[in-house]
Amino acid sequence: MIAAKYKDMLGAKSVIRELSEYATARGKEIGYENVFDYSLGNPSVPAPEKFRQAMVDLLEKCDPMALHGYSPSLGITSVKEKVAESLNKRFNMNYTYKHIFMTAGAAGAISHAVRAITVPGDEVLTFAPFFPEYHPYIDLSGAVLKVVPPNTETFQINFERFEDMLNENVMAVLINTPNNPSGIVYTKETLEKLAEIMTKRSEEYGHDIYLISDEPYREIVFADVEDIYVSKVYDNTISCYSYSKSLSIPGERIGYIAVNPSCSDAETIVNMCGQISRGIGHNCPSSIIQLAVAEVLYETSDLSVYETNMNLLYKELTDLGFTCVKPGGTFYIFPKALEEDAKIFCQKAKNYDLILVPGDSFGCPGYFRMAYCIDTEKVERSLAALRKFVEAEYR
Amino acid sequence: MIAAKYKDMLGAKSVIRELSEYATARGKEIGYENVFDYSLGNPSVPAPEKFRQAMVDLLEKCDPMALHGYSPSLGITSVKEKVAESLNKRFNMNYTYKHIFMTAGAAGAISHAVRAITVPGDEVLTFAPFFPEYHPYIDLSGAVLKVVPPNTETFQINFERFEDMLNENVMAVLINTPNNPSGIVYTKETLEKLAEIMTKRSEEYGHDIYLISDEPYREIVFADVEDIYVSKVYDNTISCYSYSKSLSIPGERIGYIAVNPSCSDAETIVNMCGQISRGIGHNCPSSIIQLAVAEVLYETSDLSVYETNMNLLYKELTDLGFTCVKPGGTFYIFPKALEEDAKIFCQKAKNYDLILVPGDSFGCPGYFRMAYCIDTEKVERSLAALRKFVEAEYR
Repeated sequence: MIAAKYKDMLGAKSVIRELSEYATARGKEIGYENVFDYSLGNPSVPAPEKFRQAMVDLLEKCDPMALHGYSPSLGITSVKEKVAESLNKRFNMNYTYKHIFMTAGAAGAISHAVRAITVPGDEVLTFAPFFPEYHPYIDLSGAVLKVVPPNTETFQINFERFEDMLNENVMAVLINTPNNPSGIVYTKETLEKLAEIMTKRSEEYGHDIYLISDEPYREIVFADVEDIYVSKVYDNTISCYSYSKSLSIPGERIGYIAVNPSCSDAETIVNMCGQISRGIGHNCPSSIIQLAVAEVLYETSDLSVYETNMNLLYKELTDLGFTCVKPGGTFYIFPKALEEDAKIFCQKAKNYDLILVPGDSFGCPGYFRMAYCIDTEKVERSLAALRKFVEAEYR
Repeated sequence: MIAAKYKDMLGAKSVIRELSEYATARGKEIGYENVFDYSLGNPSVPAPEKFRQAMVDLLEKCDPMALHGYSPSLGITSVKEKVAESLNKRFNMNYTYKHIFMTAGAAGAISHAVRAITVPGDEVLTFAPFFPEYHPYIDLSGAVLKVVPPNTETFQINFERFEDMLNENVMAVLINTPNNPSGIVYTKETLEKLAEIMTKRSEEYGHDIYLISDEPYREIVFADVEDIYVSKVYDNTISCYSYSKSLSIPGERIGYIAVNPSCSDAETIVNMCGQISRGIGHNCPSSIIQLAVAEVLYETSDLSVYETNMNLLYKELTDLGFTCVKPGGTFYIFPKALEEDAKIFCQKAKNYDLILVPGDSFGCPGYFRMAYCIDTEKVERSLAALRKFVEAEYR
């Protein structure tokens, strides 16, 4: 029987993807350089040359049978050892390879984590604004994603509503800092308060509440912003990492789960991930990609462009009167729209070839996202369009 | 809550993996060249040089942002076009890119296919002897795998038992030809009879019964064996392919689903696969690997060694009095053990450093599997060990 739950999803097209397709079509009409496409979170800087060189070296120097052979079901041990070592050095942790599981990006990591620590019907809480793909990752595992409304003053956590919504069916809390779409980095105070509440409620309910920390933007943190490694703050943390943004290789589908060694059932969770993979036919990520990232663990693409772009946009947006929390990282900014319905606001912006994404699908109506992973030269040219749009429509 | 269904799987270690680990440990004692390790189905010939060259060319000539960027959610269109074209040329089909979905090997393909065409509780029938990983692929999707007992005379299909077990809850039939573990290739008669029965029962039950055709060994067919493209025989076929064996790149996790254009809901099934991927956090296979295989669609590794090995083993086994159906392809042979309990038989063989896998986990007790994807020189040396074992224990 054709599975209705997947068939029904076909109707609900992603707003982001629709806008991106519109931008491409419009680009064919007027030249893509004239479309200010802020829709997609695709890295705009190339992978480091060292990554390319690592790939070529592997292809030229390794025995092809070893290079392209099956990974062990939990990932290549030497790769996991290097990942653990790099995290220990940078964040003063004590991971071993037994706490690392290689995944197809953060998507694969979250999907494995939620299957390991929930059973169907369990609740997972996340905080608006949030990445809309959390819905398929969580909901199709059988768990239920519930969204805590935003604190729109700061885009830190709305603790009042969080405490209301926490209940004994909540087995995991899913956070994303630096955050897509707000660009906000959770402060030390936010993370410590989150940990304190989760610890207290775990004791009260008599079961662990795990923290799933989605960290694809971990390396994109701007000047003067304190960057906390989430797992340092709360033992029951499963860190979900992706190399998509830091190395600009989103198509290669590579990341990992790192389970805090002090987490309850830490090694069991990693071992269970191997079994979850069997069930979803996933197995390991590509072996050559695993081996290549292990050679460039201390490298990133030149990520400085994102901060340059943010500063340009933030200044122009605030000059134009937008309410806007200054991003601490990522390549997103999330201002308040100039009219109540951000969908209408973004629709009007298209007339100025500004492609903006309404905040509704991020759980935050009335706001809009700009993904400024585009050339700085284009950001600069877009500022006049932005000014023209605001002056024509809202003055 | 730690998910018991995955935790419980940790206890049940794979027999094949245990034997392979034993072989590795024994190799450390006496030298691996002295262990006749017939346990694992790992290709023993390198990937074609053209594959390596295609990878290097992509790394040297492509814009890294295009090369390593996100694939569209249904796979890279140009890759799918080339896959469709190659299948059309070889098998006189009429696929377009809309019928192709790129997957993480045949495992990913089967896991997507079963989720598209079944709902939890639906039955999937397969035929013993069968690849034991079908259990996690099917069972963890929520569907129920039921195994039709073998026809041990020929290892073709036991149609009598198949017709008994078919019922209106069966939504899919899963076949694997050339077959792991028997090495048998289904004849034209077998496939036509299968199609006839499935067509009749589909009409009787008033719903489609899909054929999931697992084809990782499609390119390993021996001389004088007629090689039928399954989808030619039955319209409602979803072909699940992997490049793991044909290109000797199992670690790269690349394959595809090809849905027969005349299949019911063909394009819908492909589109649903994109939604299924979101739910399991899988997305597409590595983009560079997709692009590289598209350059070598008409290449294979030098697969001739498998037929050489098969002939050596088949002759020795039959000379020694084993009952054994001659393989038509793959790199497996599946003789009858010389005592009732194949587990005891394989245990005794270890004393002669022969690593054989009992047929029990393939749904065929009393038989054993030899994976002869090893050097021919080692196969030759193993024959004396095999003779010594049989003469000492069973004469």
